Amino acid sequence: MKFILLAALVCGQTLTNGAQAQSDKEIKEALSALQALPKKVPTPADNPQSVVKVELGKALYFDPRLSKDGTISCNSCHNVMSGGDDGRPVGVGIMGQRGGRGSPTVWNSAFNTVQFWDGRAATLEDQAKGPLTNPIEMGMESHDAVMARVKKIPGYGEMFKKAFPKDKEPVSIDNLARAIASFERTLVTPDSAFDLYKNGNKKALSPAAIRGMVLVHQVGCTSCHGGGNFNGEGFKMGEGNYQPFPQVPGSGYDKQYDLLSDKGRYEVTKKDEDKNLWRVPTWRNVALTAPYFHNGKVKTLDEAVRVMAKTQLDMELKDDQVSDVVAFLNSLTGKLPTIVAPKLPQLANESLTPEP
Amino acid sequence: MKFILLAALVCGQTLTNGAQAQSDKEIKEALSALQALPKKVPTPADNPQSVVKVELGKALYFDPRLSKDGTISCNSCHNVMSGGDDGRPVGVGIMGQRGGRGSPTVWNSAFNTVQFWDGRAATLEDQAKGPLTNPIEMGMESHDAVMARVKKIPGYGEMFKKAFPKDKEPVSIDNLARAIASFERTLVTPDSAFDLYKNGNKKALSPAAIRGMVLVHQVGCTSCHGGGNFNGEGFKMGEGNYQPFPQVPGSGYDKQYDLLSDKGRYEVTKKDEDKNLWRVPTWRNVALTAPYFHNGKVKTLDEAVRVMAKTQLDMELKDDQVSDVVAFLNSLTGKLPTIVAPKLPQLANESLTPEP
Repeated sequence: MKFILLAALVCGQTLTNGAQAQSDKEIKEALSALQALPKKVPTPADNPQSVVKVELGKALYFDPRLSKDGTISCNSCHNVMSGGDDGRPVGVGIMGQRGGRGSPTVWNSAFNTVQFWDGRAATLEDQAKGPLTNPIEMGMESHDAVMARVKKIPGYGEMFKKAFPKDKEPVSIDNLARAIASFERTLVTPDSAFDLYKNGNKKALSPAAIRGMVLVHQVGCTSCHGGGNFNGEGFKMGEGNYQPFPQVPGSGYDKQYDLLSDKGRYEVTKKDEDKNLWRVPTWRNVALTAPYFHNGKVKTLDEAVRVMAKTQLDMELKDDQVSDVVAFLNSLTGKLPTIVAPKLPQLANESLTPEP
Repeated sequence: MKFILLAALVCGQTLTNGAQAQSDKEIKEALSALQALPKKVPTPADNPQSVVKVELGKALYFDPRLSKDGTISCNSCHNVMSGGDDGRPVGVGIMGQRGGRGSPTVWNSAFNTVQFWDGRAATLEDQAKGPLTNPIEMGMESHDAVMARVKKIPGYGEMFKKAFPKDKEPVSIDNLARAIASFERTLVTPDSAFDLYKNGNKKALSPAAIRGMVLVHQVGCTSCHGGGNFNGEGFKMGEGNYQPFPQVPGSGYDKQYDLLSDKGRYEVTKKDEDKNLWRVPTWRNVALTAPYFHNGKVKTLDEAVRVMAKTQLDMELKDDQVSDVVAFLNSLTGKLPTIVAPKLPQLANESLTPEP
């Protein structure tokens, strides 16, 4: 559901034929412009990582009691046993309600400089608070209502105290968000085939993936999908890499996949210049996060590549070029960390989640 | 949601006062009638446990792609990070649909001689097949539709082959059910305070829990809630311990908690003598599985104990007796096993779960 290939360089390039071997120079040029996943995750000064905080955040992340009727946890839509998303067109909240957009992957979201498709949260901490009280997601009346539940569970009290030992009132919505964000900062997927290749293992990429890598560099996809997380380079935390999608309106895809009705960034700012601007999403693990784009209307990665080439670059890729790009994108599937399922602290003898 | 205290012995007992110390003889008598959790889990001859089968079953158990719209896995209603249930009055399936009954705990379900509230499945293998095609649970059109999805995921093919190496066509609905059942046979919770006490640690139970233990033995609760899983003793696999609930109709609770409208076992057999008969549920981990009874109408364990005493034994317990019984029931909360979250095998580049 989460994939936009955007490019500033549109015209006049001589395309490398997909079936043709790439010259060493072309490979070197492409590779030098691309980056492996950074080893260090950016962390805000007021929320340093700690083992106990990550453990707390993990429990909260998996806890469906944070939703009104006890059916939805963070993990419901951002499944860390899978692509970090829900594999569906749009997110599903309490009472079976459908959201308007697809669930972005949580994998490597620590490297995003803004969160949500429209960048309306500057940090993971801010993001974590949103779905809790969104009426069609987790549906809680207020953050106070969330914390009233959390406070009823004795085990959480202990965990918050340990995670925030200097706080007088550690069990707070801000600390809940901090803990979830800290857990999410552990959700990184290093050592993709591309990373191994970039770091010197020349056997890590197939010839098709190498051709795809050169192609996305030469046609300019990576001018937007650059940087270690393949979603923009040089942006600071809180500063979004927003790009128009479609960049070149008027193709048949606009209507076929309903690309224009959701105005993206504009829905937040109400500024005309933000109409149909979107945060550039990561390419990492994109092979695991079908269906594609903000509305999940495109079912396969092949088609997503075709749509992007047309709507952003006004290009029609040949089939072998599409499959080369898809091979490269598959090389960005990383090693998912092993996660021990939390044992959620329990409230004995009574239920916290009645029917709404 | 899952708790029925049934008793055959109803009348004429001299009740031990809750606040009064129990004699050694009373404690010995109660204790000798009760059993620790068996160390060995019953396993059918045609489905022996294996590490690879359990791993496969675990992945399937957590996989929401086995539901029509990709939102519900076995774990959604039988959450092994929690009480083995969903902590809700009734189960919730796809599209937010509510079921008619509460989700029974999966913990120690390997010791149940029949499955479901009404015993309509004789084995864990049979049980596992039901929710997949129940239109208000996982909502798949057919078991063939389930297997068509599973077959599209290459990683599952490999896992089925390893788990069922002698089968010509290992990827089958029967083997899917076998694998899930094998995983469920690992979901046992030994070493509760009661088990430690029964096995010789005399400090493991509080005085209140000991008083509660003697009480439930003396008034006859354990004539139904006996055996290692506290849901019946001496029954063979496939043979259910069904008991009427209410045993003594006519109390105010029948109406207050709507105890009579769902006919239980009768809904399966359509035999008059089965009206309002229910499988006796386990007491193990009952403190973690509020709200209570087949319809989840009773919110606290205290109230469940009061209701049971009245509807099954025609007794009104004093408050200190209720709290003693609750203390004993809390001593049946076991050690939950540590579970490593599976990495679900992925289908790259396309989605398996479109909107229904």
